[in-house]
Amino acid sequence: MSYNRHEIFQRLLKGESIPMADPDYSEIRKVVERTRKINQKLNQAEDPEAIRMILEELIAGEVDESTTLFTPFHTNIGINISLGKRVFINHACSFLDLGGITIEDDVMVGPRVNISSENHPVDIPTRKTMVPGQVIIKRNAWIGAGATILPGVTVGENSVVAAGAVVNKDVPDNTVVGGVPARILKELKP
Amino acid sequence: MSYNRHEIFQRLLKGESIPMADPDYSEIRKVVERTRKINQKLNQAEDPEAIRMILEELIAGEVDESTTLFTPFHTNIGINISLGKRVFINHACSFLDLGGITIEDDVMVGPRVNISSENHPVDIPTRKTMVPGQVIIKRNAWIGAGATILPGVTVGENSVVAAGAVVNKDVPDNTVVGGVPARILKELKP
Amino acid sequence: MSYNRHEIFQRLLKGESIPMADPDYSEIRKVVERTRKINQKLNQAEDPEAIRMILEELIAGEVDESTTLFTPFHTNIGINISLGKRVFINHACSFLDLGGITIEDDVMVGPRVNISSENHPVDIPTRKTMVPGQVIIKRNAWIGAGATILPGVTVGENSVVAAGAVVNKDVPDNTVVGGVPARILKELKP
Repeated sequence: MSYNRHEIFQRLLKGESIPMADPDYSEIRKVVERTRKINQKLNQAEDPEAIRMILEELIAGEVDESTTLFTPFHTNIGINISLGKRVFINHACSFLDLGGITIEDDVMVGPRVNISSENHPVDIPTRKTMVPGQVIIKRNAWIGAGATILPGVTVGENSVVAAGAVVNKDVPDNTVVGGVPARILKELKP
Repeated sequence: MSYNRHEIFQRLLKGESIPMADPDYSEIRKVVERTRKINQKLNQAEDPEAIRMILEELIAGEVDESTTLFTPFHTNIGINISLGKRVFINHACSFLDLGGITIEDDVMVGPRVNISSENHPVDIPTRKTMVPGQVIIKRNAWIGAGATILPGVTVGENSVVAAGAVVNKDVPDNTVVGGVPARILKELKP
Repeated sequence: MSYNRHEIFQRLLKGESIPMADPDYSEIRKVVERTRKINQKLNQAEDPEAIRMILEELIAGEVDESTTLFTPFHTNIGINISLGKRVFINHACSFLDLGGITIEDDVMVGPRVNISSENHPVDIPTRKTMVPGQVIIKRNAWIGAGATILPGVTVGENSVVAAGAVVNKDVPDNTVVGGVPARILKELKP
């Protein structure tokens, strides 16, 4: 789709930081407006097949019949989300997908999970610069209720993020993490 | 109501774990579809009396006139929620009630509280098994903003769960807990 | 507006605690009903200018053209919120504004942030008393995704609240805080 081909989205997906003064910054807002309308329609849909079709429109990509999203769901861009097979996303999740969010096969995402691929510097003069950071949730991981996954994080295969955890660095495969910020709690037999 | 009498719901309420391969597993999804429609209607209702009536439909039980829910509210099943008298539930709460959620008289639930009565094993081979765990919030307890109550937990009479706490074990009566995971912060004079 | 002039709102904004037995307590519920309707309309609006106009109605005050709110948004009163210029509030935030919430110029508020200006005593006999506490987010602060700001807190100029933090005391200027409860993580060069 043409909006996805605008150069600023490609720059963000490649990991380039974009200052607010960038002449193309306003392109982001245009896509957010498109996404809001589709997202509202998604959250009013009543049956699973309608939800799946509107979700395909929202992410501008395929959603396998084995993948389920419980509404409401909120995201700002949509087109940078990719969903594997047999994915389950429970209700009231919030995504920010400008930097890209990849959810692989068999992942379970609990209710009210936040996944952000968008950051800002803490340094004051550059605070409003948009800093993208791709998030990858690998095969068969489970993200617990109310957990938050921060920009740039990869959650490993089969790993578990405990409810309410805030994950600010990569989680190895076959590992349980929890807490704010998240720390390793247990290693699992693969 | 007949859907509540389907054997799988009785098995879950008795605490039985249900693997995804169970032939009745799909019954759960059917109830979720029913619940989504009522839940959407609830969140569009404008006045307190309409909200109370639709909430009675959602939980398939009585909601006393002294009990107040501020919308939006999200749950997946509904019929396994029971609400006491003079209960107050603030806006944007998320429940998962397959394992049963009991909220006794005079309880206050803050905004954006998560209560889950549904769990999964962390062990990889059985990860997608549904493990129910009844949640009980006892008389006059107060659950603070954004707190998360995990499956199987009982919060004691008069107790307080601090904002943002994640509660993974029982809270005694007359006790303040907080943190991730929640620890005892203070005992109260009953 | 006349509802704002009802004495109970002035008492709350001055910091007075109001027991449930107060004869004017029910005035609060009347304003919540008004607010719910406007808030639902806000969350159905599709374009940024409509959102800005309804937000002005919700807070009964001016919203500068440079200020942006991404819906959905939830609050209970609305009229005690004040928003500066170039403020950005991301989607799915939850406010409780009975005690007053002031957001100064250039503040960024992440998705699913909770800001509460309403508290209750932990002491059992007075538990249901409404205790207001004004929240002030000062110029150029950044509140991270899913953070919770508790009643009475001021977040200082240029300061950063990390994702998922629960802030229960004032944050000095030019400071990064994080954790549950939030602690100082870093001081910034102003």
